[in-house]
This record gives sequence, structure tokens and C-alpha cells, in this order.
Amino acid sequence: MSVRRYRIGAPIPTESVVKDIPAEEGNLPGWKLQTDKEGIVSLSISMTPDTIVYGLGETLRGINKRGWLYTSNCTDDPHHWEDKHSLYAAHNFLLIVSEDSCLGLYVDTPGIVDFDIGYSRIDLLSIRLNDGAADLYLVDGFSAPRQIVREFRSLIGQSYIPPRWALGFGQSRWGYRSADDIREVVTKYEEAGIPLDMMYLDIDYMERFKDFTINRETFPDFDQFVQEMRSRGVRLVPIIDAGVKIEEGYSVYEEGVQNGYFCRKENGEYLTAAVWPGRVHFPDFLNEQARAWFGSQYRFLLDKGIEGFWNDMNEPAIFYTEDHLKEVFEGIEQYRDKNLDIQSFFDFKSLVGSVDNNPEDYKRFYHAYHGRKIRHDKVHNLYGYYMTRAAGEFFTRHCPDKRILMFSRASYIGMHRYGGIWTGDNRSWWSHILLNLQQMPGLNMCGFIYAGADMGGFGADATEDLVLRWTALAIFMPLMRNHSARGTRRQELYQFTQTAAFRNLVRLRYALLPYLYSEMMKAILQNDMLMIPLAFEYPADHRAAHVEDQLLVGGSIMIAPVYQQNAEGRYVYLPEDMTLLRFRSPEDFDREILSAGDHYVPCALHEVLVFLRKGHVLPLAQIPDDDTFRGSRDLKELPLQYLAFDADPAFYEMYRDENFERN
Amino acid sequence: MSVRRYRIGAPIPTESVVKDIPAEEGNLPGWKLQTDKEGIVSLSISMTPDTIVYGLGETLRGINKRGWLYTSNCTDDPHHWEDKHSLYAAHNFLLIVSEDSCLGLYVDTPGIVDFDIGYSRIDLLSIRLNDGAADLYLVDGFSAPRQIVREFRSLIGQSYIPPRWALGFGQSRWGYRSADDIREVVTKYEEAGIPLDMMYLDIDYMERFKDFTINRETFPDFDQFVQEMRSRGVRLVPIIDAGVKIEEGYSVYEEGVQNGYFCRKENGEYLTAAVWPGRVHFPDFLNEQARAWFGSQYRFLLDKGIEGFWNDMNEPAIFYTEDHLKEVFEGIEQYRDKNLDIQSFFDFKSLVGSVDNNPEDYKRFYHAYHGRKIRHDKVHNLYGYYMTRAAGEFFTRHCPDKRILMFSRASYIGMHRYGGIWTGDNRSWWSHILLNLQQMPGLNMCGFIYAGADMGGFGADATEDLVLRWTALAIFMPLMRNHSARGTRRQELYQFTQTAAFRNLVRLRYALLPYLYSEMMKAILQNDMLMIPLAFEYPADHRAAHVEDQLLVGGSIMIAPVYQQNAEGRYVYLPEDMTLLRFRSPEDFDREILSAGDHYVPCALHEVLVFLRKGHVLPLAQIPDDDTFRGSRDLKELPLQYLAFDADPAFYEMYRDENFERN
Repeated sequence: MSVRRYRIGAPIPTESVVKDIPAEEGNLPGWKLQTDKEGIVSLSISMTPDTIVYGLGETLRGINKRGWLYTSNCTDDPHHWEDKHSLYAAHNFLLIVSEDSCLGLYVDTPGIVDFDIGYSRIDLLSIRLNDGAADLYLVDGFSAPRQIVREFRSLIGQSYIPPRWALGFGQSRWGYRSADDIREVVTKYEEAGIPLDMMYLDIDYMERFKDFTINRETFPDFDQFVQEMRSRGVRLVPIIDAGVKIEEGYSVYEEGVQNGYFCRKENGEYLTAAVWPGRVHFPDFLNEQARAWFGSQYRFLLDKGIEGFWNDMNEPAIFYTEDHLKEVFEGIEQYRDKNLDIQSFFDFKSLVGSVDNNPEDYKRFYHAYHGRKIRHDKVHNLYGYYMTRAAGEFFTRHCPDKRILMFSRASYIGMHRYGGIWTGDNRSWWSHILLNLQQMPGLNMCGFIYAGADMGGFGADATEDLVLRWTALAIFMPLMRNHSARGTRRQELYQFTQTAAFRNLVRLRYALLPYLYSEMMKAILQNDMLMIPLAFEYPADHRAAHVEDQLLVGGSIMIAPVYQQNAEGRYVYLPEDMTLLRFRSPEDFDREILSAGDHYVPCALHEVLVFLRKGHVLPLAQIPDDDTFRGSRDLKELPLQYLAFDADPAFYEMYRDENFERN
Repeated sequence: MSVRRYRIGAPIPTESVVKDIPAEEGNLPGWKLQTDKEGIVSLSISMTPDTIVYGLGETLRGINKRGWLYTSNCTDDPHHWEDKHSLYAAHNFLLIVSEDSCLGLYVDTPGIVDFDIGYSRIDLLSIRLNDGAADLYLVDGFSAPRQIVREFRSLIGQSYIPPRWALGFGQSRWGYRSADDIREVVTKYEEAGIPLDMMYLDIDYMERFKDFTINRETFPDFDQFVQEMRSRGVRLVPIIDAGVKIEEGYSVYEEGVQNGYFCRKENGEYLTAAVWPGRVHFPDFLNEQARAWFGSQYRFLLDKGIEGFWNDMNEPAIFYTEDHLKEVFEGIEQYRDKNLDIQSFFDFKSLVGSVDNNPEDYKRFYHAYHGRKIRHDKVHNLYGYYMTRAAGEFFTRHCPDKRILMFSRASYIGMHRYGGIWTGDNRSWWSHILLNLQQMPGLNMCGFIYAGADMGGFGADATEDLVLRWTALAIFMPLMRNHSARGTRRQELYQFTQTAAFRNLVRLRYALLPYLYSEMMKAILQNDMLMIPLAFEYPADHRAAHVEDQLLVGGSIMIAPVYQQNAEGRYVYLPEDMTLLRFRSPEDFDREILSAGDHYVPCALHEVLVFLRKGHVLPLAQIPDDDTFRGSRDLKELPLQYLAFDADPAFYEMYRDENFERN
């Protein structure tokens, strides 16, 4: 058997795997198991200096996860620093590669799990099951890491397939307040000659932040607006938040209350929390009926011509709960009119500072899951997954033959069957360009192929050079979205001085789209990866194993973006001879054969480096250099050029459209 | 003239320069000057794509400062993110290097200054004088950047010279609570065979955080303890904070109040702020009498055998002011018992969140400076400088022939004559290893030669590999101190598994100390730099100009530290042939001549790469590999080895001791 299951305790089911594998007797072979007095179970295994650990999906730090402690605990935290332990997702798959062994381990439990990968001790990998229970899936018997990944992926089922247009370029910003704001952005993109496929609608399109409503003042004729945008080649992609506003007469609220679809407290009352709309209830997505009901709400927008969504705030984020806020105000009393010393001053600050996403609040409410009442914190990591599943299941019922764009912030493995992912509220930091690259292989391993980061950075102020460099990476990401936060500097691609450079970068994205779409489809249909660490393709190359800033994208190319400010180039490691394609635009590029080994490669701000592998082909759509090309809808008619390095273009397997037509 | 002065408005004097240069008529040549309605003056100049901007001392981001907005406004902010604009210091010197020009500009004003170096527009450098006044010192007439630096440094006067032992290795932690805690650390260093010169005393050595007191419970016989440590080769270096505790009977408080030495509010009352001791008054270091008085307080510790200090919290940091805290509690009332919507909720959070270091608080108090009453915010950037000047002036009066160790957190140019600097509350982040390197040239340009970062990182949890790599860089920093915050993982060098590697790194530091001390003395006495960007030494080398992760240290060597986790080596650019010295210990190293150009150089966790320049010599003390060597006091007797690359060791100019004896 290449996949074996070992059960520890009585884990709460997650419905993340699609195969029923009987549990083995005995303990996980090769691992040391310990259970402490509180029932917390630890598994550990030693690492040799050469051991590399991949996986964990959406996490911080490098492709090689060694040297840190990662906690699977879906968290709304916009401070993506090096020393954070959790982001928005829980992706408990590890791939442990040593010189003479290769091992996949999936820790399937909805509880909190700590992965101490050489943090406490540099030579020890230790996994802590805080709930003392998990199904452990061991994948071995292959010497190639990529084969382990494929076995694991076949265990968890085929990844979500987005519509082809979702590989177009999209613009977003928290701060577009009206249809006119959106129109203005689209017009400016048109004027700049920069193709555009999507405009994202952040929370302001809703009426007082109520899911499945439209602000009629700022979007006076939404149905018509959707069509107007479509006629300009642009699809609108609205946000959906997890919390449902408490408001008499609001149908989603009323229906949820009447049918008992919201999460309840111990005493049976619905939990009142607060997010953007103020006071909300949380739908119990884990409850099958509630899930079906919430999923069907998306119809409101589908009926208006909407074809894509992003699910947000579904960790769930909690600004405050009514109950805890009361406690805080009571707590403040003891500090009033006193001379605060340092201890009491910091206690006071921390009392108020810990109002949002307070761990105790996640113990205040319950789900009805598989017929049991389960406290939220025990299944916390499933919440975002099941929200997106609600939508996915509805789309399958409602329009089985149509692909709907869907991606989510919070997730757990299993959600990859229903939607993609974006990596949350990153920042306009140079280090986050590299993070964007480094997150992709882990996400791919865990089934998230349609994925990407907010290019240009969501928080903080961007600079022109940062957006140029980030765009030059993002053109390779399946999800290519420019998104930024209210209050930060505007960063639409027409906002800077080098508009022609931005235009050519986006045009190059579209030239690459036939390739990217084909390679994405192969990755999805073959349970494979699109964004691949060099080590997976060149397993005997010790140097390749430590390359942290280059990736293979599909079968034909390697990318090596510049992610350092004021750099005029970068070092690139070539595991074999490759053809360097230096693009200034889809039609303006040089070719140069570089030999295997190390190279310093200059790369100006307006250039993109693509390394074509020997024996491989890169198809490139010939994008007209005028204003006739506006986005993915204009792609189909375009001729293709085939760039080849010692290969016959005829052998390139192309996926042409959504019916999987190949040539 | 190589230095010209241009005056804008009527700037408040800073006493940062030591030469009296008459002001030129007219405007700064080549710069565009604008004054807005509020009297804010902007100076701007365009940049070509090749322009590189150096300087600004303690700031974030790269050696080349292009592409960001920096604000000179001394700030206590422990979040040293990429997108921050201010750190603890205000060092307003820029060095602008283009292909055919080289220009130094010192913007001398105690007010807030914004340096927009290609942030708003990628091709524009613009400087905003928020107070509308400054003395602008233009340094030009030289084609070599380093000559511009020397001219500027001769303008601002000779840098502070630390005692030779201050180049030893020091251990610190906020969290050592007693003499016994300190003893335990020293003992463990002894047991590990790791040399140690200094133990730093953070705030807990004081009695209730009162400056110039000793906690008699935890340090029962301090005088004896100082001697005990000295006999073990260890000097104690206590912290001094800016704020003086309000406490009846505490002599520093009483004297300050009686003599009017504290800063007052508009109404004449002393400002009451809070820092570690709770409620404090701030000494008016700008007032000459108050400064002399505060400086003389250091005698309390000098008399106990103390020979070094670090000045902290002197931006000044303000946890709260009594007046503002009252306003906050009044403000909270309006949020009580209300259903907080999102706007009011965030307003409430921000009301409490903005208690510390509130900009409005810096407008609540005044200084008596040059016979005038000046509101603090107008001279804010001088406060840390003048605190350290208080100490420095006293040391000169009290013990003119003795060097006292002194460094500070907040600073302004001018303070470099009285003390060194550490770069404040960094974190155990890999990116902060690189930041440490990148900050050094700017600091050196501004006169801060004795400088360094908290190695291993102050905030956040360190890992063994991070501390190893950081130590391998820190051994080249004049100030080599391992410091960490309460609540973070312990990171003394004996805490991990590879004690021998740590021991050899510290031993290597001591082997290098004769060289580092000599080169530091040359830098100080010749108004030159110790940590030098490659561009300054190889001005015709375009590639060298963009190297951001290597430095020349003194005249003989180049360093290229590994600062990426899990890396097994790194790329190094050699502007000329060099000898690679790969050290595993002072006595175990290989030599290899590498040719000019790019190299990938392996470097294991326990190794240090030193690149010896052609025609140069590196003296190396021969540190015995046993427990007889404990620190700098054992150095003098040791024989030296001279490593040379096509050079005659006899020509190396060595500074042997504190009397500047050379050979």
C-alpha cells in the first residue's frame, strides 16, 4: 500500500479525504508517540542535516519549512511576519525528504496542531495534536517526492477547476464605493490599453455589509451594471462574508433565525458576534441543512449575471462578541481613576487589545455536525472550508455544467475540491513577493492549484518598482489579482509613470495564458502540481534542493523573479541547460542558451525572465499590440507561437477550452 | 569650498556641527525649492535611473535608500517592518551618487523631516522640512563618495571612542532579575568555554526602575558584585532610562524638582508621563544646567566600579501622559453600553491603542534651550542626543583620561561625539540579519562607528540556526551584543545544541579583535568608515554599486554573511581577486584564491566567510583553544598571525591599546 491510515483517539471527521482506507493496527511506524497528562499527543521523528520538509500549504517562511513552529489554527491576522505561527488556513500535509527516504504525512483533524519542524531542537520534527486525536495518513513507497504528492492528492480528490477567464487579470481594492468608482477604474485601464478580465467587489457593494444584498444607492441598477461591465469584457466578482447581519426584515437573517441555521451558545441562544455589518450571527456551515440553505443564497447574485465570488472573513474573524465586549467594559472599570503602574497599564491595554479574534470567543458557540453538538474550537479549522463547500455544493446542484469562480481566505484540505485560495492580507513588502513564490508549492501539494497572493500587497503603501516586480511574478500565478486596502496608496497599474511597462507585463500574462491554462489543467486532472520546487524535478541535484526563489511553472519553464528593491538583476541556478527568454513584451524578447550552473542575470524593471527547459515547448499567444485586445475573451481567435528548446512544438499538449478540448 | 551652508528660515540650533561655516547667499544650487501655505518647505531634485542614494543612518531598508519615504522623527516602535518610516534616530545626511556627480547633503534641523527618495515619484528626490527651517550643508567637489563622507565627518567632529574592551562580546537580556541570574549566565558561559567581556543590566537592576539606584534585594552587595564580576573578566553595563520616577525621598527626583530641571507644561507644572517606573518627569537635557546635573548622576555607578552604560527610552518613549490618560478614560464613556458599530468599535480601539507615544503628547511640554522656551516637538529629535551628551560631558569632566562605554537608542548627528548606538528593538527575524548589515554604512557615514544590532534579535523567538548565522555576522560589528526580550526564548549562546560552533565563533571574534580595533580607530581618527559599501571602494564597478548584502570591514577584508534560513551557502560578488578564508575556528580555516566575478560559495552553519583583499593583510590573534582565554583582557599577551594576500605583513598599521600605540 502506498497510503496507510493510522488512527489516534477518536478524531472528529473532516470529510477532507475521498477514499475510505481502513485503519492500520499499531502505531505510526518510525515515529515516537507520547501522550501527556492532558491527553495531548505528540509524534516525533529525528531529522538529519540534509532532511528537507515541504508542505503545510499556506504558511509563512520558505519552501523548506525547517526551522520554525507552525500552528494549524485558521487566524485572521494581517501581520504576516516571519515569527507568526498561523495564517488563515490549516493544511496539515508534510512531505519529509531525506537522502534515502521520502515520506508524506497528512494529519487529519479539525483541531489545533503544532508542527515543530526543528524549532525546539534543530534535529527534531515533532507534531502536537492538541485534541489528542487524528487520522494519520502515511504516504510512502516512492522515492520521488512528486509521486508522493500525486498519491496524496488522489486521496483527497480532484482539485477545483476555475473557469478559463479566471486566469485573466483582475483589479480589486477595498475602497471602491460605487458603480461609478468601478467604471472609472475600468475606463482608466481601457485608456492605458491594459487588458482586464475582472473587477472585484469588496464589502462596499453590499447594503450595510449584508451578504446577498446590493447597495442600491451606490450601485443603482446592479443587473444592468453587470451587463455593462460584461460588454466591456469585465466580470464583477463580489465578496461574501461569513457573518450574517442581525437586522429585522433582512431575509437571510430572518430565514436563518427561523430555521435554526446559526451557531448557538451553550444556553441555546444564537451567538452574537460583530464583523463589518456590526452585530452578526454565524451560519452553521457544518450543519448540512444550514449549508444547503446558505449555498442557495448565492443564487441572488448568479441571477444577476455574476459568475464568480470570493469568500472572506471565514476563519471566522470576530471583531468582538457581545458577551466578551461586556466583560471588557466591566474590566475597564477597575482601571478608572487610578494611577496606573506599568503592570496595570499594560493589563489595561491588553484587555482592550485582545477584543478581536479572542481565543475564548471560539469556545462560546457550537455546531450541529454529524448529529452532534460540537464546540466551535474543536472544529474551528473546518469553518472556512465548509462555507466554501456550501457554495460549491450549490453550484453543482444549480449549474452543474458551468464553472463558477470561487476562492476563499480560510481553508482546510478538502476545500480544494470546491474552490481556490488567496493568501489573505499580505503587505506591500518586498519580502512578500518572495513569500508569494514560496507559498505556492505548499498550496499546490495540498490541492490548491488556483491560488495567488494580492499582487502589489494588500496592506501598506506600494511603490512603482515594487508593483512592477510583483506583477512580473504574478503573471505566472493562476489567480492574478491586484488588491489593496483602504487608506493605502492606490496601486492600479495605470497609477504610475511606466504605464507601457505595466501594459506589456499584463499583455505577456495573456500571451502565456494558453500555456498556464493547459498546465493548470494537467496539474488538476493528474493530481499534480503547477508550481514546482526545483528539487522535485531534479531530485539528484543537491544544489537544486536548496533553491528557495525559483520555481518550475508547469512542465516547460522555470521562473526566477527579482524581488529585491533597486536590484538590476539576480542570481539564477540552472539545474540543466536552459534557454533564457528575456521578455520586454510578448513580441519583444531575446533568447539565449545558458549552460547549467550559476548565472548572474540582469533584469530591468520592465523585463521578465523565463527559462525554457531543454526538450520543452512554450506556446505563446500572439497578442496584438493595439487596443483590440481587452482580455481573455479575445484570446481564442489569436494565433499561437511556439517557442521550443530542442523540442517539437507538435508534441505540446494544449487544453484549449473549458470542455477540455486538446490538441 | 567643499562644504557650503545654506540657511532656510531660522532653524533652532542643534550643535551637531563643529565648524562655523558662514551661510551662502541664495538657494541651494541645483535644487527646486517650494514653500506651501503652512510654511512647510520642500526641496527637490530629479534622479536618473542610475542614481544611488546613501545615508540616513539608522533607517530601514537597503544600503541604497531609493524607493521609500523616510521620516526623521525619533520613535520608539519595536515593529521594524519594511513599510515603517521612522526608527529611533534622526540622521539627516544623504549622499547622492550618480554617474557624473557625487553630492553630500546634511539637513540640520531638530524638526521633523521627510525624505521622499523616489517614493512618490520613482525619479524624484524630495525633502520636506516640516518646520520650514534648516541649515543645509552641501558637500561636493569630490568624485569619490568616501571623500564626501570624510568632509562631512570633519564638519561634525570626531566620533566617540569606546574602550578597547567594548569590542568584546556581551550578553544581555531583559529578564535577568538578580545578581544570581547574572552569575548563573556568566558561569554557564565559563562552563561552555565561550569568552565573555560584558554582562548588560537591563531595567531590573534598579530599585523600582529608578535611575541611579540599585535594587538591594536582588543585588544585595552591588559594589562587591561588580568586583566579583571584574575578577571573572566581566564588566557590568547598566541601562539608564530618560524618565525620572516621581517618588518622594528619591534624591534624583527631589533635586530635579527643587532646581527646576524637569520639562514643564505650558502652565508651568512639570509634565507627568509614565514609563517603566510608572509616573515620571523628563529631565530637560537641553537645559545646560539640567544636563550637567543629570550627567553627574552617573557618578553613582562609576563610583561602584561601573565603566559603561547604555541610555534607553530617550526618544523619549511615553507609555502615557497623565493628562492624555484622563482624556482616554473620559472618551471611553461614550462607548459604554452602546451597540458598537464598526466605525465606533474601531474608534474605541484606536482611542486606547494610541495611548503610547502619542504625537500630541510631544506638544505638551517645553524645554529651556539657549535661553528660550521651546515646545518639545520642535526639538524632539535632539532629546536622546542631549541625554547622551549629558553623560559624555560629565565623563570628560570627571575622568578625562578614561574611556567610558556609552551607547544610546535615540540619537541625532552630533551625539556621535559622545557615544555609540545600538539599533533598538529588532526581532529574531532572518530579514533583520540583513538589516543589521545594511544599517551599518549609513550609521558610519553619520559618525556612528561604535554600533551594532541586538544579535539574535530582541523580540520574537530565535532558533539555533538564526543565532548561529547572526553571530557569524555580529563578530564583525564593533558592538557585539546578544540581547533579547522578556517572554522570548532564551538565546544565550550555550542554550543550543552546537555549543562548540558558538564557542568558535566568539573565539574568532576575539582573534579578529586586534584588526577590528585597529580599523575602528583608523575610521574614527581619519573621519572614515569601518563598514563600507563595495561601491565606495570600487567606484568604477557598476555591479559593485548594487551589492546590498556584502560589506568591506576596514581596509583588508570583505564580509558576505549567510542570512537565509536553510541555505547551505550564498552568492558572492568579488570586484577583484580575493583570498577566501573559510573559518571554522580561529585556528581551523582554509584559504582559496577566488577570481573577480560571481561565485556560489558554500557555507555551513558553523563556518564564517572572510574575503581578504589583494595587497592587504589580516592580523589574527592566536586564541588558545582551552579555557585560559576568557575575553579581551587575555588578548594582549597573545601572539599574532598575519594572513596576507600579496602583501607584506610588516606594513599593517596596528593600534595596540588605548593610548593609540601603533606598530
